[in-house]
Amino acid sequence: MAKELTTRSENYSQWYQDLVIKADLAENSAVRGCMVIKPYGYAIWEKMQAQLDKMFKETGHVNAYFPLFIPKSFFSKEASHVEGFAKECAVVTHYRLKTDEESGEIIVDPDAKLEEELIIRPTSETIIWNTYRNWIHSYRDLPLLINQWANVVRWEMRTRLFLRTAEFLWQEGHTAHATMREAIEETEKIINVYASFVENFMALPVIKGIKSANERFAGAIETYSIEALMQDGKALQSGTSHFLGQNFAKAFDVKFSNKEGKEEYVWATSWGVSTRLMGALVMAHSDDNGLVLPPKLAPIQVVIIPIYQKNEQLEVISAKVDEIIAKLKAKGITVKYDDGDNKKPGWKFAEYELKGVPVRLALGPRDLENGTVEIARRDTLQKSVVPLEGVENYIENLLEDIQNNIFDKAFEFRRQNSIKVDTWDEFKEALKKGGFILAHWDGTPETEEMIKTETKATIRCLPLEYEEEEGVCIYSGKPSKRRVIFALAY
Amino acid sequence: MAKELTTRSENYSQWYQDLVIKADLAENSAVRGCMVIKPYGYAIWEKMQAQLDKMFKETGHVNAYFPLFIPKSFFSKEASHVEGFAKECAVVTHYRLKTDEESGEIIVDPDAKLEEELIIRPTSETIIWNTYRNWIHSYRDLPLLINQWANVVRWEMRTRLFLRTAEFLWQEGHTAHATMREAIEETEKIINVYASFVENFMALPVIKGIKSANERFAGAIETYSIEALMQDGKALQSGTSHFLGQNFAKAFDVKFSNKEGKEEYVWATSWGVSTRLMGALVMAHSDDNGLVLPPKLAPIQVVIIPIYQKNEQLEVISAKVDEIIAKLKAKGITVKYDDGDNKKPGWKFAEYELKGVPVRLALGPRDLENGTVEIARRDTLQKSVVPLEGVENYIENLLEDIQNNIFDKAFEFRRQNSIKVDTWDEFKEALKKGGFILAHWDGTPETEEMIKTETKATIRCLPLEYEEEEGVCIYSGKPSKRRVIFALAY
Repeated sequence: MAKELTTRSENYSQWYQDLVIKADLAENSAVRGCMVIKPYGYAIWEKMQAQLDKMFKETGHVNAYFPLFIPKSFFSKEASHVEGFAKECAVVTHYRLKTDEESGEIIVDPDAKLEEELIIRPTSETIIWNTYRNWIHSYRDLPLLINQWANVVRWEMRTRLFLRTAEFLWQEGHTAHATMREAIEETEKIINVYASFVENFMALPVIKGIKSANERFAGAIETYSIEALMQDGKALQSGTSHFLGQNFAKAFDVKFSNKEGKEEYVWATSWGVSTRLMGALVMAHSDDNGLVLPPKLAPIQVVIIPIYQKNEQLEVISAKVDEIIAKLKAKGITVKYDDGDNKKPGWKFAEYELKGVPVRLALGPRDLENGTVEIARRDTLQKSVVPLEGVENYIENLLEDIQNNIFDKAFEFRRQNSIKVDTWDEFKEALKKGGFILAHWDGTPETEEMIKTETKATIRCLPLEYEEEEGVCIYSGKPSKRRVIFALAY
Repeated sequence: MAKELTTRSENYSQWYQDLVIKADLAENSAVRGCMVIKPYGYAIWEKMQAQLDKMFKETGHVNAYFPLFIPKSFFSKEASHVEGFAKECAVVTHYRLKTDEESGEIIVDPDAKLEEELIIRPTSETIIWNTYRNWIHSYRDLPLLINQWANVVRWEMRTRLFLRTAEFLWQEGHTAHATMREAIEETEKIINVYASFVENFMALPVIKGIKSANERFAGAIETYSIEALMQDGKALQSGTSHFLGQNFAKAFDVKFSNKEGKEEYVWATSWGVSTRLMGALVMAHSDDNGLVLPPKLAPIQVVIIPIYQKNEQLEVISAKVDEIIAKLKAKGITVKYDDGDNKKPGWKFAEYELKGVPVRLALGPRDLENGTVEIARRDTLQKSVVPLEGVENYIENLLEDIQNNIFDKAFEFRRQNSIKVDTWDEFKEALKKGGFILAHWDGTPETEEMIKTETKATIRCLPLEYEEEEGVCIYSGKPSKRRVIFALAY
């Protein structure tokens, strides 16, 4: 094996950390809590970005760019918003360095202090709604359907690559609407876009739902989320879409005149997914040999490795490989031919397994004689020998198979790890195993808080799809009409 | 006219500012020196990004992402680098806000002071070379050909939309090589990529050259640049590519063992273009009616406007327009049909002229009868009536024509505004008119500095293409073997 990984059963958390680093996805930087996203990891993120961007544009959104900095006073305007983010704000206070005359060292110039401190955006509602005030006057200016791809900073104390970093990359949509109804429709449209992306491209099933008040975005009336289940039985919130009501319009005085000429406050939504999705992708599908990437997001979909003893053999193999590559490329399939001579085939096999390349072809002199090629699929690690003739069609189908199989496996895992419980004892017992726990709850923040304090479990969401059912809260015994989803979460 | 612009002859600088704002490209934000890039402006930037990214990848580069923050101590490691950037650094000193117990106001928490201040990257050589130290051990790890799309901050005192803003968007390439020769080749390869992009996509001719020592990037051995000429006779540096020698490798102790097993410092390049290119695009081609966009970068390439009195007429026109749109889209041409009923055609004509849409079609009942359509091209404002039959081919050719014509016009403008001068008096006289001034220079920083102090003109570059020629420096009278390009510059 090229690089040893901790196994999942040994230490899941260490396995994840090892994998992210050894598969060259990302690493910790010299700056506390900030990561370096390495080229292989960034290539996956670029594929995610491209697909999401396409889906946003297909649903009528456009991109723009707003400043990195938010004046401190803007932050204070929406009370619950500032309360939610104040504790993790990076603050710019000065705008110049200078050489200290005594020590000769580079110091912050005390004369270059800003009149008002600037916050590095942890999210951009405040600076954007301050801008929207000048853009929106009449109903004819609405809706505004704007997205931004950007970096944001939240000064987290405990960080983990991709899952929780001080700086991360994301997209944040900020839309403005004339009516409450339209804003709610937008919020729901986006949670559906996110679910469709995560399921169809990341091959990861999600549950769409509404957050309880405790877990709501700071400043939102309602937060929708998609929740995915990781292999260790913990939930990972993978995307959120917020109905903000008129909170930010009121804080920043953004009004429009409606068709009747009457002034009203504008209705808002905001929504985002981030490089956290990279963490979900890794944790949901990968195994003890390394990454398992869904073909639709794999930077390299097929790797071809020549098996040979003598250089003459390599020449013949390479000629055949060139033909295969041409046929695969014509189908839009990304191929890498690794004919490097300083590593043995076994080392290469392990390396591309670690990197999660969905399909591996191995081609030797014997294969050429027989007109066959050995194909290994990463998801199941199965090998088959197939005819070279028409291999491009075989691979095209195989990639689709793999994409579906990865989804099915994750879906089946979730099915097996979703359980209904009706008592507090059952609940605590279920938490030992992990997974999604469907239970009745009395609907109060107090009960949710008590459950969290005692077990660390939180309500992941009130699923959009559910059955009405009479029951009693597992904690308080008060009546409840529906189950919600509890889990331990990232 | 929809929105009045200041004319270029009246006040070029005001014309530019008006145009950027009224064409909805960008605006000043509430944060000093930072701009908001509006959706229409951002759509142009996205097209630039997509093309540049493609060109970088075709030349073997990959993308990655490095932290926004740079520890202050990193900055001090390369002496000339810190000297170049110290005066314009935004500095993060704290990581938390809190509510002041006395006033109830939100304040920066004095207890949350960072041990070491963090600089918001003005450019990323230091953080990247600190990272490369761990990535590079052997010649087999080289070359590293990495690019990053990012925001950077340089605390400029006088800012102008796109041309000079405190925060801007850019790409920065940072490559690492085993030999000096390879690094220089990379530096040159990139300046050629930039020139090819600016000429073929932005339709703007550039001069490739080398910067004099005074204008060199802080930390570089040699800076290559491309220089474009704006309509007011000022030069605009549009992209730079730096040969960094071993400066950063030495500052961050980045060594590799070569094929002979000997340790050597790594050779470096860095290179970037930014949203400043948006400023160049606007200033080079636009006129008193608004933007003139090269078709290859125009978010909307063709706009279609119906001319009608009655709603029945609109229906017939719209049916025909649907056919035209389908044919144009099949050719990959971006079309907008503006059948909005709250603006008159004349208002729309002016609006799309302001926005620089390369081709405008107007279609009325008379046209339908005659089987014709009126086509106006934005670059020359010429109108023609052409048959509807095969109009998609006509438009396809027209877009190419416009792209070429815009380039030719800019090329001719530069030819007419490039002058050779041989005396100090001629030089000063030429500066009144502006343009590129080709003159002999004695090669010393002192002379360049004196010329700058007396006239504000700087050496834009020592062109890569030049003829050896005996002459004397226009300022000092000392001997010189070649002309360099002087100009007033943005």
